[in-house]
Amino acid sequence: MEILAHHPAVELQFGTSNTYAGAAIPFTNLAYIPHEQADLTSVDAVFLALPHKASAPMAAKARALGKKVIDLSADLRLDTPEVYQKWYGNAHPNPELLPVPYGLPEFNRERLKGADLVAAPGCYPTTTLLGVAPVLRHDWLQPEAPIIVDAKSGVSGAGREPKPNLHFVEVYSNFYPYNPGRVHRHVGEIEQEMHKLNPNAGLLIFTPHLLPVDRGLMASIYVTLKSEYTATDAQALYEETYANEPLVKVLPAGQQATLKHVVRTNGAAISLTPVTDRYLHITSVTDNLRKGASGQAVQCFNLMLGLPETAGLL
Amino acid sequence: MEILAHHPAVELQFGTSNTYAGAAIPFTNLAYIPHEQADLTSVDAVFLALPHKASAPMAAKARALGKKVIDLSADLRLDTPEVYQKWYGNAHPNPELLPVPYGLPEFNRERLKGADLVAAPGCYPTTTLLGVAPVLRHDWLQPEAPIIVDAKSGVSGAGREPKPNLHFVEVYSNFYPYNPGRVHRHVGEIEQEMHKLNPNAGLLIFTPHLLPVDRGLMASIYVTLKSEYTATDAQALYEETYANEPLVKVLPAGQQATLKHVVRTNGAAISLTPVTDRYLHITSVTDNLRKGASGQAVQCFNLMLGLPETAGLL
Amino acid sequence: MEILAHHPAVELQFGTSNTYAGAAIPFTNLAYIPHEQADLTSVDAVFLALPHKASAPMAAKARALGKKVIDLSADLRLDTPEVYQKWYGNAHPNPELLPVPYGLPEFNRERLKGADLVAAPGCYPTTTLLGVAPVLRHDWLQPEAPIIVDAKSGVSGAGREPKPNLHFVEVYSNFYPYNPGRVHRHVGEIEQEMHKLNPNAGLLIFTPHLLPVDRGLMASIYVTLKSEYTATDAQALYEETYANEPLVKVLPAGQQATLKHVVRTNGAAISLTPVTDRYLHITSVTDNLRKGASGQAVQCFNLMLGLPETAGLL
Amino acid sequence: MEILAHHPAVELQFGTSNTYAGAAIPFTNLAYIPHEQADLTSVDAVFLALPHKASAPMAAKARALGKKVIDLSADLRLDTPEVYQKWYGNAHPNPELLPVPYGLPEFNRERLKGADLVAAPGCYPTTTLLGVAPVLRHDWLQPEAPIIVDAKSGVSGAGREPKPNLHFVEVYSNFYPYNPGRVHRHVGEIEQEMHKLNPNAGLLIFTPHLLPVDRGLMASIYVTLKSEYTATDAQALYEETYANEPLVKVLPAGQQATLKHVVRTNGAAISLTPVTDRYLHITSVTDNLRKGASGQAVQCFNLMLGLPETAGLL
Repeated sequence: MEILAHHPAVELQFGTSNTYAGAAIPFTNLAYIPHEQADLTSVDAVFLALPHKASAPMAAKARALGKKVIDLSADLRLDTPEVYQKWYGNAHPNPELLPVPYGLPEFNRERLKGADLVAAPGCYPTTTLLGVAPVLRHDWLQPEAPIIVDAKSGVSGAGREPKPNLHFVEVYSNFYPYNPGRVHRHVGEIEQEMHKLNPNAGLLIFTPHLLPVDRGLMASIYVTLKSEYTATDAQALYEETYANEPLVKVLPAGQQATLKHVVRTNGAAISLTPVTDRYLHITSVTDNLRKGASGQAVQCFNLMLGLPETAGLL
Repeated sequence: MEILAHHPAVELQFGTSNTYAGAAIPFTNLAYIPHEQADLTSVDAVFLALPHKASAPMAAKARALGKKVIDLSADLRLDTPEVYQKWYGNAHPNPELLPVPYGLPEFNRERLKGADLVAAPGCYPTTTLLGVAPVLRHDWLQPEAPIIVDAKSGVSGAGREPKPNLHFVEVYSNFYPYNPGRVHRHVGEIEQEMHKLNPNAGLLIFTPHLLPVDRGLMASIYVTLKSEYTATDAQALYEETYANEPLVKVLPAGQQATLKHVVRTNGAAISLTPVTDRYLHITSVTDNLRKGASGQAVQCFNLMLGLPETAGLL
Repeated sequence: MEILAHHPAVELQFGTSNTYAGAAIPFTNLAYIPHEQADLTSVDAVFLALPHKASAPMAAKARALGKKVIDLSADLRLDTPEVYQKWYGNAHPNPELLPVPYGLPEFNRERLKGADLVAAPGCYPTTTLLGVAPVLRHDWLQPEAPIIVDAKSGVSGAGREPKPNLHFVEVYSNFYPYNPGRVHRHVGEIEQEMHKLNPNAGLLIFTPHLLPVDRGLMASIYVTLKSEYTATDAQALYEETYANEPLVKVLPAGQQATLKHVVRTNGAAISLTPVTDRYLHITSVTDNLRKGASGQAVQCFNLMLGLPETAGLL
Repeated sequence: MEILAHHPAVELQFGTSNTYAGAAIPFTNLAYIPHEQADLTSVDAVFLALPHKASAPMAAKARALGKKVIDLSADLRLDTPEVYQKWYGNAHPNPELLPVPYGLPEFNRERLKGADLVAAPGCYPTTTLLGVAPVLRHDWLQPEAPIIVDAKSGVSGAGREPKPNLHFVEVYSNFYPYNPGRVHRHVGEIEQEMHKLNPNAGLLIFTPHLLPVDRGLMASIYVTLKSEYTATDAQALYEETYANEPLVKVLPAGQQATLKHVVRTNGAAISLTPVTDRYLHITSVTDNLRKGASGQAVQCFNLMLGLPETAGLL
């Protein structure tokens, strides 16, 4: 809402929330209305930030009315109902919608331009994929070596619902991994996209950790290069890949990406460390709620509507 | 449980929790059992850490079996059902139990020794009363001047239940007052005890704030002295009052009490600042969960059972 | 630098820092230069963020060259060299400059318009004065009652210099008062300005605390009203006073000001609690580095240069 | 000092600090004295917590007087002056002392018993080595695969000296890697000890991060097993290895180690995640100042003096 309220080409019509119905929507003169009262006919586009399972049916409904839809849930990110069922444990509510363009503009821009329906990725896949895409796409990685991602997420990445493990006292001063290895739901989504970038992408080892800060996500990525490439050359590869990307910054060699580079911005930052010739360490950071969620959704929206890609984002 | 598990005279028989039934009780070899399964006949004493309204009936039941009861809820802290109704909005579930000795050992020790039932106070009243009691009891304060308490509480003082306002992201980097002035439920309890110390105690102005730390509570107290007393003399008064108190430390003149003085200890610390001759500023600190709750409950238990007062607490 | 870099009417010529000389200035294409290399002739106005004692001579030098000067140090905030000496312990370096318009636009706007030299106040005086000014100016307060300010400051208010007490480990999880009562240097400055608003202003009791957050300052103010006024009426008085102020927001009755209302903004927020008819509790908040320092300095600059008052600030 | 003050077999004679000379030593009745005033003849053993380069000469002096010495600096941890020079950039001040028993009791207990001089390791090497030692010692790892350690350290691990990067405002809400890959000074020390456990140990990739908490260190370790071993079997290997270790706890399969398991204790906790048959993820945690420094130094001291190994530590 904060981003859209300041977006030069957007006029907000309504925001829905059953929990906060009647409460003022910050940065606007509107109040939240219950989901049922949303009049989809009154708008050109809808952003869906609903739980998975609830989101796809609403997307289908909005699409039936000819509206542009940016879906921030997990429902439309996996290309087939089978993979969806595997990771989310339930039958896909609207398999007829699949597959949907994946909303990572830096590697999917052409499919997003003018699209009617987009599945916007969240903070873990976005940050990981931006970090590893250049070496994958240019086939620099040894296919038999795993791609190790040690990720750390600020608590805003875990949603607003009050849960025992998100109570201030539980998180404060603590730090720990959860869903380590290959069991986090985003493993399927990240591997799907990695394989589009490179069909021989190695096995993903992905361990997220809960970081006791409100905002910011870091993916620490450890990869092994093919013998014909050298880790020090990755700096040039990344600088070239992202040279014209307005929302991704590759830091100069020797600097390290920090959360402060990106928190409260819509951008990502990446730093590279050649450990030896063949081992490369990549640090990729975003703000969970911006480039890792809403900011990127608006970036997709801009491409779908033919607006300047960074409208409302700089 | 942590304190009791290390207490030299205690053998834990059971711990109840409907939410965590079956889970291991830290520091023990026990697992939580549902409330209904608690066999009160198997114990000498029970600690009740239940919500108000649920606690008094359980206290009555345990008393009927002849058990010593330390109640940490609000149910038994107010002396009459009328005052209870005023602050908690419901009829008192067990008015026949009232009044009950108030579990602040430093000012109520004789009534606690050998008592069968004690109402243990929480962090706000304990910290405030320890801070203001010496000048009240010795009648140093101008009765027509208000007693101003600007209090700051770490989040553990707000309980473990997940609530939107206790979500990590809501508390982190924030700070704010709540229930300011004279509307917080503890105002009634604090004034009741202040009037026992001095029937002419001034009006209490009490504003709690939520502090973005896990543990520690500070009461910043501003009082006005009668003209026959001088603020610089308060130092000696407090040192004398607490000279033999094992769990209350008066800091030397010129030092200020900090949360680090008391966090993870069962003690309180107090510092005094003579602002002018007649205005005195008092800072009183405790750990919400220790001297501000469980530690003090065990101190009461020790007095009730005739054990050394600080058994298990140093 | 961040504010000025985005200011529509400002072109940054240089920034000085002996410690960081050569380092890039964030948000600009400039690098810091040593103080000695600053070419004052190249600019229209200078912002001085130097330690006290070093700042006044630089202000004098810039004034001699006819430049507009906004001084953020303490050197020019006290009206006479005597009072300065009392609070800062050294002879005033440039007594010929005194007195200087005090940079609190909400209560000094006319003197700031077109001024050549302004003393911009810091976070404690700004937040306190905005909170207490309406009742002082309209003479609502009992002159014999003290004005009690229990203030809490995020660590950015303490400056960037590394000191043992600002080490992360010392501040984290801790909270404590410092310079309590009437010894903090800002007591003199706040009382000076309170007396301009009302010559009969009561005694200031001012106790700052260090809050374990990076940004945000709260002044919790406790005042006693004359019998002809009623605390509930203060709401209307404050709303009226600040009705046309673009950077001060009075919250609706019943809401409480929080740090989140102001952090990373150039504004202040104020909430009012009528405790009884005669006792009023006021909560005033700012961001230490914005309305509490740089944002306000730019607001003054705008007035001095005849620019729109909020240019670069909204 | 806190540990020693409560140690049943220790009588503290003095503590030195040039910075804090004259200040009270917490938990004792002593005050710090300047280094020069330390009377080594009055004691049986000395703990040295000095900067590298300053520590070895003091160790030599104490040894010449026949005193037991536990050195917490880096001076005596590397076995040869050449390796020391490589990592610390200066000639070793006392090469005649090398090599010295390495103070990691779990894997070096026999050499520590009765030893006169011990080099106690710090938090990064201790936590990493405890995490990786079982698979190294039993030769489970593919020698050609790197051992990847993504480490996160609370700020107390960085020392007490005030530095710009340890200022509260710099650390708060931030998170970042530093000295990534193979350039951190502890890489040499960790590899040295890994090679003692297994001469074929793979290349160490070690990236530390600064975690915005005061205490706690986590080493997240990613290793590749030889084909004859299976990651799920590692659980039994670790449980067996540490079965009789009083200060190392292997968590049950499926649980993850968190900072809260170890903060303010003298122990370590380890959890294991079999990612696939051949990839194993190990999480090892300690408190920087306890098992990661002082607690372990006291554990060594106990072994050197023939005391019960955990005296003063449980």
